Amino acid sequence: MIAAMLNAPTVLQRCEDLARCTEEPGRITRRFATPALARARQLVAGWMRQAGLEPRLDAIGNLIGRREGSGPTLLLGSHLDTVRDGGRYDGALGVIVALAVAERVGQRDLPFALEIAAFADEEGARFGTAFLGSALLAGRVSARWLEHRDREGVRLADALDAWGGDSSALDAPPRRDLLGYLEVHIEQGPVLVEANMPVGVVDSIAGQMRAFVTFTGTAAHAGTTPMGSRRDALAAAAEWIGAVERVGRETAGLVATVGDVEVAPGAANVVPGSAVVSLDVRHADDGARNAAVQTLHALATAAAAARGVEIVWAQAHATASVPCDPRLTAQLAECARMVTGVEVPRVCSGAGHDAVMLGEVAPVGMLFVRCAGGISHHPAEAVTEEDVAVAIEVTASLVEELALERV
Amino acid sequence: MIAAMLNAPTVLQRCEDLARCTEEPGRITRRFATPALARARQLVAGWMRQAGLEPRLDAIGNLIGRREGSGPTLLLGSHLDTVRDGGRYDGALGVIVALAVAERVGQRDLPFALEIAAFADEEGARFGTAFLGSALLAGRVSARWLEHRDREGVRLADALDAWGGDSSALDAPPRRDLLGYLEVHIEQGPVLVEANMPVGVVDSIAGQMRAFVTFTGTAAHAGTTPMGSRRDALAAAAEWIGAVERVGRETAGLVATVGDVEVAPGAANVVPGSAVVSLDVRHADDGARNAAVQTLHALATAAAAARGVEIVWAQAHATASVPCDPRLTAQLAECARMVTGVEVPRVCSGAGHDAVMLGEVAPVGMLFVRCAGGISHHPAEAVTEEDVAVAIEVTASLVEELALERV
Repeated sequence: MIAAMLNAPTVLQRCEDLARCTEEPGRITRRFATPALARARQLVAGWMRQAGLEPRLDAIGNLIGRREGSGPTLLLGSHLDTVRDGGRYDGALGVIVALAVAERVGQRDLPFALEIAAFADEEGARFGTAFLGSALLAGRVSARWLEHRDREGVRLADALDAWGGDSSALDAPPRRDLLGYLEVHIEQGPVLVEANMPVGVVDSIAGQMRAFVTFTGTAAHAGTTPMGSRRDALAAAAEWIGAVERVGRETAGLVATVGDVEVAPGAANVVPGSAVVSLDVRHADDGARNAAVQTLHALATAAAAARGVEIVWAQAHATASVPCDPRLTAQLAECARMVTGVEVPRVCSGAGHDAVMLGEVAPVGMLFVRCAGGISHHPAEAVTEEDVAVAIEVTASLVEELALERV
Repeated sequence: MIAAMLNAPTVLQRCEDLARCTEEPGRITRRFATPALARARQLVAGWMRQAGLEPRLDAIGNLIGRREGSGPTLLLGSHLDTVRDGGRYDGALGVIVALAVAERVGQRDLPFALEIAAFADEEGARFGTAFLGSALLAGRVSARWLEHRDREGVRLADALDAWGGDSSALDAPPRRDLLGYLEVHIEQGPVLVEANMPVGVVDSIAGQMRAFVTFTGTAAHAGTTPMGSRRDALAAAAEWIGAVERVGRETAGLVATVGDVEVAPGAANVVPGSAVVSLDVRHADDGARNAAVQTLHALATAAAAARGVEIVWAQAHATASVPCDPRLTAQLAECARMVTGVEVPRVCSGAGHDAVMLGEVAPVGMLFVRCAGGISHHPAEAVTEEDVAVAIEVTASLVEELALERV
């Protein structure tokens, strides 16, 4: 029924081939500026040539394959790096589906050049950077990042130069020739599984705020300190962790998470003197997110004050929500409706993606593919051939649609 | 006004001298079967001789000084070991006050023998044992304990034998000659500070239950997993930590503490998959304690079930409440009233003491001394000369009273 069914098994096989490019035998670990990533890049470069694209490396080590055409450039792609002990599909799937799309549109003349990007660093798993690869195309590589060091103490700039990149050429101007950027990515969440849909169209990438809140009370003997004489840092923190969950549930579209708590002294027979609590808050609407954060700040203060506990609120970072391009997104949704026969879900991406950076210089559109159990960043990541076939078909349809409207 | 005022400065000076017997320069650390504890024991042995007591070592390394007398034996004392980085007074004060009492009653004939015990291990800071020193007198040394190993892998029995003890002689019968056991100890809590009283009489030593409760949900991406799709182990644990505090506050005489939480994976951007939570519950009344524990078990189950989370409840240990001897306790309270001119507080000890073991073989009485800020197990432990003088006076009065009633 869907012609691209023929391609989906090859896409999955190629993701499998990439999984064997790893820093750690038995796991999938492919971080920035490593030999494992270079091997993966080499495989993809070969596939690019097969698809009629001319591969090149840029200064940060992104692999970009280009097929010339008249007019501006349509960019498709995703990233090739992974987290430590990650999965086969986060990033890689988007690159390989883009290649399948390029093969699908074949050698016929398009009213735009076609490029496929395999970004060298999206996860930041080695140097703690955010979207380093795609940042180069947006002219947003921070000079500070060059000084970041990995766990072994290696400087980012030195690792890059030793790996064939050029740390002196990272201040290139942003790309201004892009007609648009399209990215296919596994959802990394359960929404499509729960909706029983193969793909979903991304409306926006959520803005997020990360903070660490330190509750400080007084450590005391658990046996000899009456309840009324305590300044229990963890009890205050626990009330607030409950509030984070409640505010998350009560605010439509919000996700609010406490992922970690560090208790000190951290002994069963000692009333906690301090608790450091992480907070991660995301929403498609920055105003709604900021309002939720303000509410949570007030609730932390109140939970602490009720116990004579003090808090210090340290915001680690905050990024604004990135809307996908309304027109591209509507076209993507229409293509998905044509291919699947139903309206597919419109979702807000709670995870960040290279589209955040490309959104600075081009209209962006993103298609999510259902992934088993919503699992990502884990060896158990899985997708089905059928869903991948749908993703290829939808993306190829959109490319053809974009070609038609420019003729 | 109080004659023992003369002795209190010497008591404090001796605690200071003992503090210099330490495994770690700059800290007070004096654990079982260490050269530091042997040096402290040697100092105390000298002071025993000065007070007219004949010192001896038993098989576990307790130092016991004896002055013969007709009839049974009245035992006074406490322990000489400390936790790592502990204070000057926890344990040591009780031993040195007992010496001051022995000097006070002088060389006159008493209708009982007088012994002072300086126990070798109450804290269990090296081998995780409970009241090891006093357990020997109660015939309660467990053969299992001999196989315990310290952090360096040294076996308890080997450490003891190398230190001059005798691991083959720990199954001695319990002491059956004891008229009673009296122990002076810092309170380790804020009750006397808050009541503005120098000393308090211990009614009982609380029973306690320790458990570790594991909440298991599903780790998930904090950005992409909607609130309604989560099985957040920490959110369930946090609701329960709040319940522990609430039940503790609402139940008279109960202390209930969560001292530690270990979250996994423990990353700010991951919904927690598991949380291991410690629980410590103490009460003078075992029935009240057991009822509270049952309530808390039900609340943990409910907090977990509400989120599709599972719990495993692992009880680490439970000990029954130990009542002090009603008659000795009443006499101690009367002596305290005579010395201070007011009714002193009757308290339940939330911490365990050697009196727990001695309670198996003798009537026990305990006197608490106010300590600054309720702080213990910390270099900041402090007592005042005035309060120590009261403790000496009260204890000496009781010894004289016991002598009078036997004549």
